[in-house]
Amino acid sequence: MTLDPAAAAAVGRVRVVGTGLLGTSIGLGLRSMGVTVLLHDPSPTSLALSRDVGAGQPAVNAEVDGPVDLVIVCAPPDVTAEVVIAELVAYEGATVTDVASVKAGIADQVAQAADALGIDASRYVGGHPMAGRERSGPVAARADLFLGRPWVVCPGESMRPGRAETVRRLAAALGATPVLMSAREHDEAVALVSHVPQLAASLVAARLLKAPDPAVALAGPGLRDVTRIANSDAMLWAQILSANAAPVLTVLRELKADLEGVLTALDALGEASPEHLGARAALARVVAEGQAGRERIPGKHGSPHTSYATLIVLLPDRPGQLGRLFNDIGEAGINVEEFSLEHSPGQPVGLAEISVLPAVRDSLESALIAREWHVVG
Amino acid sequence: MTLDPAAAAAVGRVRVVGTGLLGTSIGLGLRSMGVTVLLHDPSPTSLALSRDVGAGQPAVNAEVDGPVDLVIVCAPPDVTAEVVIAELVAYEGATVTDVASVKAGIADQVAQAADALGIDASRYVGGHPMAGRERSGPVAARADLFLGRPWVVCPGESMRPGRAETVRRLAAALGATPVLMSAREHDEAVALVSHVPQLAASLVAARLLKAPDPAVALAGPGLRDVTRIANSDAMLWAQILSANAAPVLTVLRELKADLEGVLTALDALGEASPEHLGARAALARVVAEGQAGRERIPGKHGSPHTSYATLIVLLPDRPGQLGRLFNDIGEAGINVEEFSLEHSPGQPVGLAEISVLPAVRDSLESALIAREWHVVG
Repeated sequence: MTLDPAAAAAVGRVRVVGTGLLGTSIGLGLRSMGVTVLLHDPSPTSLALSRDVGAGQPAVNAEVDGPVDLVIVCAPPDVTAEVVIAELVAYEGATVTDVASVKAGIADQVAQAADALGIDASRYVGGHPMAGRERSGPVAARADLFLGRPWVVCPGESMRPGRAETVRRLAAALGATPVLMSAREHDEAVALVSHVPQLAASLVAARLLKAPDPAVALAGPGLRDVTRIANSDAMLWAQILSANAAPVLTVLRELKADLEGVLTALDALGEASPEHLGARAALARVVAEGQAGRERIPGKHGSPHTSYATLIVLLPDRPGQLGRLFNDIGEAGINVEEFSLEHSPGQPVGLAEISVLPAVRDSLESALIAREWHVVG
Repeated sequence: MTLDPAAAAAVGRVRVVGTGLLGTSIGLGLRSMGVTVLLHDPSPTSLALSRDVGAGQPAVNAEVDGPVDLVIVCAPPDVTAEVVIAELVAYEGATVTDVASVKAGIADQVAQAADALGIDASRYVGGHPMAGRERSGPVAARADLFLGRPWVVCPGESMRPGRAETVRRLAAALGATPVLMSAREHDEAVALVSHVPQLAASLVAARLLKAPDPAVALAGPGLRDVTRIANSDAMLWAQILSANAAPVLTVLRELKADLEGVLTALDALGEASPEHLGARAALARVVAEGQAGRERIPGKHGSPHTSYATLIVLLPDRPGQLGRLFNDIGEAGINVEEFSLEHSPGQPVGLAEISVLPAVRDSLESALIAREWHVVG
């Protein structure tokens, strides 16, 4: 969870191509640990900003800059492959990696171009740091953007192990958790855990567009959770989904088949027929499968999902109430595993949901009641 | 946001039929304000438990119990209508309400039966307190279960205003926010803000059932949000969805049409054709519509959605850290609007996301940095 200077030192001299949010954040992190970072960007403004915030020094040319051990391509997804190829050509000895969020298409393009150009494609190792911010550009960059986040490393089939190790070290240096998997595995995984959930959130949220105000006013914490990630950049997501079309299609077709099962069941319920019982069972099965799938999501610290016990506490809407609450929890010596704040329509009150290990739930409840908190659930 | 004894006094003498979580919680709340509550349940065990926790006194018969002003039917959804009818017959002067989460079907059944029996159906006012807990039964009941929650009141067409007013007072007495709408409006609204989001969460989560472990391990806060409500009771949801089949079908068919648009666009992207540009635009449109829909969800206090500014703070995973954080926020005099805790796979660290009014974001950031917090976003 912290930056790792030993891993950083082992990465060697670094060239960052593309000085947006990710490139500049990488530069900031590495610079803070004394790594030499040479920056390049087609936009002089972006390059100057990145230098000014301290992400490294602008690259001049191979001769002046000296040798480079690792090139990190942080270009937009749709130009990443061609930039990777250019860097493989320009920096003969270097390992080249990238940060694009879809990996197989880039690996294929790089392999084909390398064949055509007669260069060694095994120096390319795909990467995907699963971190980001709502704001973009070098000014939004943070040395610690990657702390605690997974950083997928995708070694190619013909890869020599040392190349992947360099990228793994980069991830570790920046405090991320390196995760090795093939480009196909990665793309299928992000279709499942990121791209399809994004689409589902968007499709549910889109239903609200033409809904009457009083209906939308009944929205509760459930709808808010389901649609939170719908608040996303449309153009960026069009690029991501386009680049990962096949794996997303696979998952989405399965989802559609289940959805059609639900529609059939609901249709049957409209008719007075003996189908009713089967239709209800079909609906129950969809919800039960969702529950079982949900159970697979890892909990805190990447450990297998733990069922926490929850407490709901009523919170007056004044500054300092959360501080008082957490102070009281801290004094009880109890660690909060998950926490969320719900809001109450039309009422100046919040409902704080506190998740703790089941073994300590009751003692937390007693401690909070003793401190005059309103435990409502 | 508090119990309202004046409103409670105006409700009069109450009979609660069905002493599960909701019935017992209503009894507890009303009893705490001195209202007479007569309890009835076909299960002697449930009735005794409800009495023992203090929700009221078991009903004997109309003669012994004396007159009743309001009957609250808290039976399971599929028997609610028949219980309502029986109570209308048994308590001639009383207003009768219920708490079932789908309303039009019950209203129709009550109206038909009342016609057949020659009784006055206008004494029935549908209700839906939008509150609940993961646990059920009288022992899980809370006097303050309804604080700050919407309580939908559905007056029938032939209703005399006083009847709805009694139910509105009941909601207000228990600290809920009464919301008046017709049964059809209610059912369409909950299809949109509750039932379809539930199905979408279940359908996304069900995809994880057969996914490889390394893919599931990449799950981040986005997937966790989208699927949170998938952790639900399958049999209960089969009942709810069955009872609201037509409105759910309407919303779900629109969602399916949009989903088919996405599938068509993704399919087109698999082919090297000039369709590409249109396909990308179609994907971008779906995400943009979702974003616009999401913007309509009310924020805190039922006011129109406010865009909050967020700060992300790194949190060492030790007891007392949240207390220290909120103390420092409180000392800075800043009110937290929304708060959530994210977890980092494989790392003993949490990322706390703090939402505040945009005007105070920068001063909060300065205050936290001055107190040596690691602000990472």
